[in-house]
Amino acid sequence: MANNFMINERDVRFVLFEHMKIEELCKHEPFTEFSKEEFDMILNEAIKFTKNELAPIHEISDREGAKFDKGRVSLPSAFHSAYQKFSEGGWIAVSRNPEYGGGGMPTVIRMMALELFEGGCVAFMIYPGLTHGVGHLVESFGDDEMKALYTERLYTGVWSGTMALTEPQAGSHLGDIKTQAVPVDGKVYKVQGTKAFISAGEHDLTPNIIHMVLARIKGAPEGVRGISMFLVPKIRVNPDGSLGEANDVQCIAVENKMGLHGSATCQLAFGENNECLGWLVGEPNRGLIYMFQLMNEARISVGMQALGQASCAYEQALAYTKERIQGADVMDRKGPSVPIIRHPDVRRMLLTMKSTVEGLRALLYLSGLYYDLARIHPDEQERERYSNLLEILTPICKSYASDRGYDVLGLAFLCLGGYGYTRDYPMEQFLRDAKVTSIYEGTNGIQALDLLGRKVFMKEGAAFKALIDEMEKFISAEKDTKDLAPEIALLKEARQVLKEVTDFLRPLRAEDPAYFNLVACPYLDCLGDMVVAWLMLEQASIALHAIKTNPPDQNFYQTKLQTAKFFARKNLPIAITRLQTIRTPDRTPLEMNEAEF
Amino acid sequence: MANNFMINERDVRFVLFEHMKIEELCKHEPFTEFSKEEFDMILNEAIKFTKNELAPIHEISDREGAKFDKGRVSLPSAFHSAYQKFSEGGWIAVSRNPEYGGGGMPTVIRMMALELFEGGCVAFMIYPGLTHGVGHLVESFGDDEMKALYTERLYTGVWSGTMALTEPQAGSHLGDIKTQAVPVDGKVYKVQGTKAFISAGEHDLTPNIIHMVLARIKGAPEGVRGISMFLVPKIRVNPDGSLGEANDVQCIAVENKMGLHGSATCQLAFGENNECLGWLVGEPNRGLIYMFQLMNEARISVGMQALGQASCAYEQALAYTKERIQGADVMDRKGPSVPIIRHPDVRRMLLTMKSTVEGLRALLYLSGLYYDLARIHPDEQERERYSNLLEILTPICKSYASDRGYDVLGLAFLCLGGYGYTRDYPMEQFLRDAKVTSIYEGTNGIQALDLLGRKVFMKEGAAFKALIDEMEKFISAEKDTKDLAPEIALLKEARQVLKEVTDFLRPLRAEDPAYFNLVACPYLDCLGDMVVAWLMLEQASIALHAIKTNPPDQNFYQTKLQTAKFFARKNLPIAITRLQTIRTPDRTPLEMNEAEF
Repeated sequence: MANNFMINERDVRFVLFEHMKIEELCKHEPFTEFSKEEFDMILNEAIKFTKNELAPIHEISDREGAKFDKGRVSLPSAFHSAYQKFSEGGWIAVSRNPEYGGGGMPTVIRMMALELFEGGCVAFMIYPGLTHGVGHLVESFGDDEMKALYTERLYTGVWSGTMALTEPQAGSHLGDIKTQAVPVDGKVYKVQGTKAFISAGEHDLTPNIIHMVLARIKGAPEGVRGISMFLVPKIRVNPDGSLGEANDVQCIAVENKMGLHGSATCQLAFGENNECLGWLVGEPNRGLIYMFQLMNEARISVGMQALGQASCAYEQALAYTKERIQGADVMDRKGPSVPIIRHPDVRRMLLTMKSTVEGLRALLYLSGLYYDLARIHPDEQERERYSNLLEILTPICKSYASDRGYDVLGLAFLCLGGYGYTRDYPMEQFLRDAKVTSIYEGTNGIQALDLLGRKVFMKEGAAFKALIDEMEKFISAEKDTKDLAPEIALLKEARQVLKEVTDFLRPLRAEDPAYFNLVACPYLDCLGDMVVAWLMLEQASIALHAIKTNPPDQNFYQTKLQTAKFFARKNLPIAITRLQTIRTPDRTPLEMNEAEF
Repeated sequence: MANNFMINERDVRFVLFEHMKIEELCKHEPFTEFSKEEFDMILNEAIKFTKNELAPIHEISDREGAKFDKGRVSLPSAFHSAYQKFSEGGWIAVSRNPEYGGGGMPTVIRMMALELFEGGCVAFMIYPGLTHGVGHLVESFGDDEMKALYTERLYTGVWSGTMALTEPQAGSHLGDIKTQAVPVDGKVYKVQGTKAFISAGEHDLTPNIIHMVLARIKGAPEGVRGISMFLVPKIRVNPDGSLGEANDVQCIAVENKMGLHGSATCQLAFGENNECLGWLVGEPNRGLIYMFQLMNEARISVGMQALGQASCAYEQALAYTKERIQGADVMDRKGPSVPIIRHPDVRRMLLTMKSTVEGLRALLYLSGLYYDLARIHPDEQERERYSNLLEILTPICKSYASDRGYDVLGLAFLCLGGYGYTRDYPMEQFLRDAKVTSIYEGTNGIQALDLLGRKVFMKEGAAFKALIDEMEKFISAEKDTKDLAPEIALLKEARQVLKEVTDFLRPLRAEDPAYFNLVACPYLDCLGDMVVAWLMLEQASIALHAIKTNPPDQNFYQTKLQTAKFFARKNLPIAITRLQTIRTPDRTPLEMNEAEF
């Protein structure tokens, strides 16, 4: 069955305008020409686009998928028309520099649109998503010539882009990559090597594909400090922007995957005939630093894939539970069969999903807002603070959202009973498509090491402190809010335990790095629960104030209050317990005899 | 890639002979002719059979699957030869009555074999699994003629069987089934109705398929009290056992599923031409009571499907982490890349999987032992006690094992990184095949209602008390075991909280049934954690004693000790916290406005 796209518009508006108050961005350049009304219009447009263009290709993306034949990948024809409309609609670079064809909107608006689009057809979104990121790399780190040739063509979707990092032998460990670059002339190099798991590495949506390739210039230092970034077009580009000769980039295989069939995951051979030219981006040996711009954007996008699919699956499961009649009401056991939404266990699943989706929405939109504020806030210290906040939230956006979003998909699946297991409903495709979110752009284990090993203690703990300060600001502002007192008390307790655990871990980073790494994943999970609980309780507080004004949609605010409290009560006690276990070191997994696992 | 079947034989032997001490069954009829050596031989045979016959068809079961054309289902030819060998090997009814061609072995031995077989090829096992259960229904409830005609032919695989319960409009709610039976002559009825989601409902493995159909005799009471059971053969059977005419049973559709492609999930129309004869099994209106024998066996088999796949996936993930070289050791960051099993986060995943698999193995084998003891124990009261223990464990075996087993599959998948998402490795198929275990044979939500709504309080709490007594017996026997003191203290605390929560819930069953139902799932999860923690700590205690004798496989016992402690430390604190939250009632999901979800 087709993906019957649905979205809780009211909650999207609530997050944008009542929680994040994004219209305040319009006070500052470069957003002064925008307004709340315009943002709202974009939301309507994005919903329309998703319903008309993306949801209809969801099933096609799975059933037809990307077809590989003799080095060429062809995509379903429906992808071609969707890509054209997506490009023409200005969606690829909706939040990028208008000088290069971007829409100039805030990133938080792009986040909102992404939630919808990813829920519509996640496999399709791989192509414009990477194209956006590659365009931004060129804009940020390319020289004038490169920018002039590539940026606008990427932002407007004339060409598309990829990030070519992983190699078969290196996997997650980029320090081991072996692709070589030999200088030819100025910034031009000959590139040689094989890259694996390259999303959108080859396809027929655009006449050219721009690969951003990490490689070592001959003689470069070992490890990550010797990695440079090269722009490697599939077809060489003449100085006037017209297409020249093919550039010795071969697609040698396409992965046969569990899901995401519409996204071609390619193995690419660069320079098999030693004729692959690459253009150095920025300075030599700084490739990984540059690539982190795209990797961080991609990590948040992966969280958004999880949210978008979870959000859409929840709404469809909810609709199903209202329609499916089965079993008597527990309060009237001899009465007629009722819609299954009346059954307590189904309600438990629904509210678990709803609170998770709304929590992840708040988390991910907030990352967009932080991105904007880090760029446009008039105060430099504030920009720095927001940039820190974004940095510490990034691994949580990727890892926590992909894990909890997947849990939502599992519950949505359960709501449909046996039907969920059939291909007549979109649930099983959501599960297959979304399963990769815990893996790519750095596995969730790697995200946890990034959070605990780097972000929490970087800059003398500035980012961590900024995050805790945000929570504390909220806690102390609400200290007299009786209606939220039990939930805020839980958050306070969690914050206290988190501080203690973090203090406990600080010296272990050097003294017992193995144990430190061992607890990174549970630490991330718990911090994720806390951040989302904080955001949900902020929303609850807003709802409490709104209710006092007796608004026409009273019910929405009442429900928001219930949803937020439920999230906090359900998740914070467990987070507290798990955090506490980190402090009573169980080093068993480290002590195990390797042969005896 | 083919399913490279692996099993931790040492742990299987440990559970059978050191933990469950199953050779003690041989003291009693009907097992006096067996011995430990014979049981061990069966284990070896089952491993050989799985490796040679089942693991090789795992991938085929998915890629070829069941093919539906004009009312007929054909299975891959490899299924035909596997089925023949499976039948000839006596595996279908290995633990059933030798009088009818069964093997006469203890059920705990069948459980052990099932773990292997389900890990080898779960989709194939649907056919012999149901055939076993249907044969047992006939043996238990059929009259002499029916038993003579059908039992042996089912136990030896000449014909196969199905359970035809679900109807499209009724789903999980069997009281709503509408299939009608009109008396023709004596026990012969005409059956008319449509059944959905019938596993193995049509196929070409056997010349006849025996459907056990739930239907209402015209004029029967409404609801579950008016349901009778009919034996409906696909081909009518002559009195001499030869096949007669077709019996007006049509396969009108086969589900297109996420996984388990080799198992034909059929929609069956009985009596479309009013020519479908069914033979009443036992008394009228007692069909659901009879069917519970098969349903209970099937529920434990579903737990076994989850364990078998989790066990096999864990071993394969483990092997991968020993081979895959990537990243430096955290204790030697400038050193060479090492197998990923050296990385702490990978070890965390491995030990989480290992402890879960070993815990589920103990749980499921124990259910087999209880089954045997409930049947053969010389003391009637003891038989009753074991029967109660089996009853209360059954929903846990189904629900907890399918949920935790699925978590293991998710971690095994993660260990392989991007490769796990490809069809080059069996992980993605495990995930797709096993996803249905949370749904079929009663969704996990229904299992939880069975546990809390029925089993915990039935017979004035006798089954619950028997289970708690088992735990208490262990706790007090080990009160001086210093090496396990912290873990046993956790189990004691959990048991205390469980008692309090259960006392708290007792009156709510009548007073607040909606809240009662709302907490059934978390209650089951927590009780599952406790039961498995208890069993793992029992194993730890056995290991402690064994270590003192300085055995040659010292390492195995040391590891068992570590694994058991890890399980208890990791899971019990969270179970305690979750149980406590049940006592501070959060009725939010019940209070939510239906329109506002």
